[in-house]
This record gives sequence, C-alpha cells and structure tokens, in this order.
Amino acid sequence: MRCLKCRAPAQVEVRRHRSAFCARCYPDWFRAQVQRAVDHDRMFHRDERVLVAVSGGKDSLALWHALTRLGYQADGMYIRLGIADYSRRSQAKAEAFADKHGLRLHQVDLEEGQGFTVPDLRDARSGKPCAACGTVKRYHFNKVAADLGYPVVATGHNLDDEAATLFGNVVHWQTDFLGRQGPVLESTHPRLVRKVKPLYRLAERDTAAYAIVERIDYILEECPMAKGAKSLLYKDMLNTLEEQQPGAKQRFLLGFLDGGRKAVSADREPVVLRECASCGQPTTAEVCAYCRLAERGRRKAAAMAARYTQA
Amino acid sequence: MRCLKCRAPAQVEVRRHRSAFCARCYPDWFRAQVQRAVDHDRMFHRDERVLVAVSGGKDSLALWHALTRLGYQADGMYIRLGIADYSRRSQAKAEAFADKHGLRLHQVDLEEGQGFTVPDLRDARSGKPCAACGTVKRYHFNKVAADLGYPVVATGHNLDDEAATLFGNVVHWQTDFLGRQGPVLESTHPRLVRKVKPLYRLAERDTAAYAIVERIDYILEECPMAKGAKSLLYKDMLNTLEEQQPGAKQRFLLGFLDGGRKAVSADREPVVLRECASCGQPTTAEVCAYCRLAERGRRKAAAMAARYTQA
Repeated sequence: MRCLKCRAPAQVEVRRHRSAFCARCYPDWFRAQVQRAVDHDRMFHRDERVLVAVSGGKDSLALWHALTRLGYQADGMYIRLGIADYSRRSQAKAEAFADKHGLRLHQVDLEEGQGFTVPDLRDARSGKPCAACGTVKRYHFNKVAADLGYPVVATGHNLDDEAATLFGNVVHWQTDFLGRQGPVLESTHPRLVRKVKPLYRLAERDTAAYAIVERIDYILEECPMAKGAKSLLYKDMLNTLEEQQPGAKQRFLLGFLDGGRKAVSADREPVVLRECASCGQPTTAEVCAYCRLAERGRRKAAAMAARYTQA
Repeated sequence: MRCLKCRAPAQVEVRRHRSAFCARCYPDWFRAQVQRAVDHDRMFHRDERVLVAVSGGKDSLALWHALTRLGYQADGMYIRLGIADYSRRSQAKAEAFADKHGLRLHQVDLEEGQGFTVPDLRDARSGKPCAACGTVKRYHFNKVAADLGYPVVATGHNLDDEAATLFGNVVHWQTDFLGRQGPVLESTHPRLVRKVKPLYRLAERDTAAYAIVERIDYILEECPMAKGAKSLLYKDMLNTLEEQQPGAKQRFLLGFLDGGRKAVSADREPVVLRECASCGQPTTAEVCAYCRLAERGRRKAAAMAARYTQA
C-alpha cells in the first residue's frame, strides 16, 4: 500500500475510508479531519478560547495537540479523580505534555477541594463509579469553563466512544439520551458552556496512530475502575460488526446524526433549568445531580476515615 | 432447578424470565405465551380463520401446533421455493406434519406456477436471494390468504428474528422500516390481509424446546442460501449481549415496541396504495416489487434453460 498523498510506502491504514498514509502525511490528514468536524458542526471559531478536557490518555492529548497545531487557543484542564496510582500516572502525563508544549493546564483536585474521590462513588448495585464519575467530570469541566470565561469545552470522545454510547442508548431505548447525543451540545443557559467532540469522526485506532506518530506520551492503561464496563462490551460488539462490514460503525453513528436523531427527538419537550439550591449551578432538579453525588461521596469518605481512626 | 408449576425436576430453563419447567408443564407455558401475545396485540379472534406460513422449520411448525392446540382454526401454507434438496426435505416435513395432525396445507409451486425459483433471484452484488425471497413469500402468503378469504396470515418470527431485524434496521438507521416493524401489521387495503407474529415474545431456544417436547419433526438445517446472511451476524452479536446481560434481547425489542417505535415513526406519512399494472395486487409503485422480481427470475430461468439446450 502507498500513501494517498505522496505515494511513499504507507504506514497507517484507514480502512473505512479505503485510505492509507505514510507517517509524514498522516498527521496532516488527521488534523484535517479534526478541522472538518470543527467547521462542519460549527463547534467554535478561531477567536474563541477552548478548554480541552484532558485525562492523560491518547484521545484527549491527541485532541489538544491537534487543536494547538491547527492554531486554536486551547488550554487544558485535568481533574484529579483520586483513583490511586492510575490517577497519579495520568496526571504526570498531562503535566508533562503541557510543559513540553508550553501549554496552560488547569487542575481541580476532588479530594482536596471536594472532600471525596471517585472510588467513594461506587454504585451499590454495579460496584462501579463510572456513571457518577461522568457526572463529576461534566460538572467540573463546565464550572471551570464558565468561571474562567471559556465559551466551549472540547472532549476527546472518538468514533468508537460515540458509537458505543449510541449503541447502549439504542439497546435500552433511552430515547431521552438519544435526543441529546451529538458532537455539539449547545449552551442553553449562561452558566452552561457549549460542549463539543472534535474527534467524533476519528476511530480509536486513528487517534492511537496520531499519538504514536506525533510522539505523544500518554497513559496506556485503561482506568482500573472501568473493567467490565458495559461500554467495553458494546465496543467489542461494534468491532465484530466492523470486521464484517467495514465502515459500519461510522455509518451507524453518522446515520443516526443525519437522520435517526431527528426522528427520535421529534417531539421532545424543552428542558427547564433552574439554580441548584446547594451550589447555584444550572439543573433541572432542586439539588443538582453533582451535589447529591458529592454529598454521598463525602459521607463515604468520612466513614472510611472514621474506620481507620478507630482501628 | 425445579419446575415453576409442579416443582418436579426442571428440564427447560427460560433464563430471561428466571423460570424453569418440567417437560409436562413447559408446553402449557409456551402456549400461554402465544395466547398472551395474540390477546395483548389483538392479533385475531377465535372466529377468524388463520393462515399459518409454514416453512417446515421449528418456528412455523411450533406456531401451527400451538395455535391448533389453543383451539384456533389454523390452516397452513407452504411455498415450494425450488431450493433443491433443502426445499424437498422441508416440504416433506410440512406435509407430514399436516397429515399427522389432520390439518389443511395449501401449497404454491414457484417453478410450476411462476416459471422461476428462488436461486434465480440471486442478487448481483451480494450473491444472495434472501431479500428477494422475502418479497416472494410475503406476496404469495398475502395473495393466497386474500384469494381464499383468510383475514390474517401468521408467521413464525420469534424474538431472535425480530431483535435481529430491528438491530439491522437500527445499525443502518432504516427509519422507514423501523416505523413499520412490529408484531401486527394491520390491513390497509381490502387485498392486504393482516400479518401477525404470535411468537415474537418467545426465543429461538424456546421454540426449539417446544418442538422437541411436543415431538414435532422439523427440518433442522438452515436454508443453504442464507449462509453468511447479515441476520445471522446480528443474531450472534445479540447472543453475545444476552450472555452478558440476560434479558437484554427482549428488553431491546420490547423497549422499541413500547417507546422507541413511537418516537421513530412520529412523523411518517401515510402510504398511498394502487393496483399493480401487471398483477393487480396493491403496491406503491406502478409495477409491484414482486412482479419486477418475477420478471427477472423468469429471464434468468429461461437463460439457464437455453444454455443447457444449446449444450
């Protein structure tokens, strides 16, 4: 196989596009895909400061790298989730990346600032904190962006992530979630900033290849709390489908965005937002989901601390 | 494990219902499920004659058996598709079942009556006649029912079939098909009889168990033309999901029927039917899909015959 651009021997194949690239041309193709998504879905303008949600993994660092190279004013934000060694290692990767490229990285520390960590949020039934962790991350990324005047938060969700989420929502017919799923979530309140996913047309292996070619040092291991998560099962199933029908994953997601979503969300009612009685952030409930979780987390953390004090 | 009804040692497990039955009680449970579907979805009344689409496989024979035992006036109909030995063996099973139980079996012979067989309908791209075969079967089941005054055609589609079809339609976001998928397709024209699927809440393994317990002699082999069909891939994927999340397949299908379908079909326009210029049956086109397929099949059959005549 030869590079689509320069005809040199190809090193990275993008099967669903029936394309291949050499290591010199591949990053340009990757960034062009990011640019295309930003423009196609009107994610942000050149004069808007973007806050990139950084985990230390390949997707978020590849996104930050690509946006910076494309000339956007992209700062990073890392949340210290307190998942033991995994959090320490991923924080080190995020900080090293920011240092190397001279970029600004905001940080929030859950334990110090909020009095709990993600392992305190384990669900009683599933034993997993993944859903709660999602709420925590969305809350702080949004709050920091709103506090510091960033109009938009960009996350590293890729095609595989989005297809797996869509798959889970379809399998359980979560029509509410289906109506809201997409690469852009517009701001509907002065304190809810726009959320965008510039990598939604790029597969997991595309971002891995970008990280390798651009020598981005990222944390390889998956979050230890996510083991056995449903999203991983859905990804496996979609990979089986993709093997038999190359491009199926992308058609599934883009077909939804182009047509299915409109059909599903036809008669959704607009959501009414008010201020959380506890923290003042916008919510549909009296006390927002984050404050309820945080309260539970603090109680759990306090109980654990008390147990060790007594012992 | 013990039988849910009589506490004897259980022989058939229905995991998604967390139930198990002995071989004496199982058929009653199975038929109660069929009755429940017939009533719940208002498929037909006791005084309506039902035409059962019979393939000779476990599902259609189990359906015919159960409906007869439940006291319905159910006649069978078999279409000779001309798929070599497979068709001959399945025809023999259907005829033997009708003989054994003293039931009436109508038959249509494609080759004799229409001048082509299903293998003449292979798709140029996929090499498979499956989609065309579906059109052929729907056409003749409907036509014979309308000609002979049956108000309803019942097919043996089970939970696995329906979930796989739904899955395929979702993965490709066939919103038109999605809006029409369901256990009952009402008559919208005097010559379009109602179509119902009384087994849609019963899994493939439930009907297999019923056939074994009731000593129904059915054709075990799958249609040789279906090898590699997409529906089999979707069934495999859904079985993977079911293994991890028992009941997921049923929740996927019933969740769609209960909520998802309404959301998807919200603004579908009503279909305008007219008479096919060639055969007079109701259609949305000038010449119906069946007549176009049959024309192609006849040409193919004639070309094959000519080749052997010349040789």
